[in-house]
Amino acid sequence: MAENARVPKALFPTPQDAEAAFYEALTKNDLDAMMAVWADDDDVYCIHPNGARVTGVDHIRESWRQIFASGQRLSFQLRDQQYVTGMMLAVHSVYEHIAVVGEPRARAPVIATNIFLRTERGWRMVAHHASPAPAAGAPEPRRAAAPPKTLH
Amino acid sequence: MAENARVPKALFPTPQDAEAAFYEALTKNDLDAMMAVWADDDDVYCIHPNGARVTGVDHIRESWRQIFASGQRLSFQLRDQQYVTGMMLAVHSVYEHIAVVGEPRARAPVIATNIFLRTERGWRMVAHHASPAPAAGAPEPRRAAAPPKTLH
Repeated sequence: MAENARVPKALFPTPQDAEAAFYEALTKNDLDAMMAVWADDDDVYCIHPNGARVTGVDHIRESWRQIFASGQRLSFQLRDQQYVTGMMLAVHSVYEHIAVVGEPRARAPVIATNIFLRTERGWRMVAHHASPAPAAGAPEPRRAAAPPKTLH
Repeated sequence: MAENARVPKALFPTPQDAEAAFYEALTKNDLDAMMAVWADDDDVYCIHPNGARVTGVDHIRESWRQIFASGQRLSFQLRDQQYVTGMMLAVHSVYEHIAVVGEPRARAPVIATNIFLRTERGWRMVAHHASPAPAAGAPEPRRAAAPPKTLH
């Protein structure tokens, strides 16, 4: 089972499972849990808000290590999710409403595009592109409760 | 052929073709060519740099109409492309090096995640997430000339 220490054991049967684990790891500042969500690949990439592109699982781990090292605890509310799901790739667009634990005011929201790949070990994140939403950043009105789109 | 005026006639056999058409339309301020790249769908979304999420082909058209109305002519150099291509979805990450025609200095680069869907009428864009790269925004060193990754 543990033939490769870098291969995480957790399996995510759906992109939603992988995404939930991503935000749980973020909330807990849990680096190992965070990296268990990512595909173990040199081509995965992560763009933190206002950041450059960080490519490859090793660089991504280091970027999260630095973020988690601040000790700041964040809580996330996800809203306005939109999904496009293929056989092998799934694209999730979410508004992250972020609060710092201990601070009374919520921060401005962040828009994230989260991309997941179906691997032999379940769905894994292959890209996270996050950028600050404008202050009046409520998404434009759209059809309510649109069902997730699945492609076959 | 013209059973639906909103269905563009152009076909893009590969995600690369659709992406090339996207940047050509941007360069030419050509709204119809721009919208021919997008899938005709209420769930497509576009995040302009520093912007909120714009969802649905009608709102996206209006956002580009406003951008093109400025009359500003831009030129784009794409660098550091990374691709993940599935059967139905393709994810392209690119650095856009943008210059305003008539201005001597290049602007700070923009990082874009471009997502394409294979439709009955070829590959179409379903998401464009762009955000400003930091001023020292050169991507981190990585393996040179990595081949595009294709999933089967």
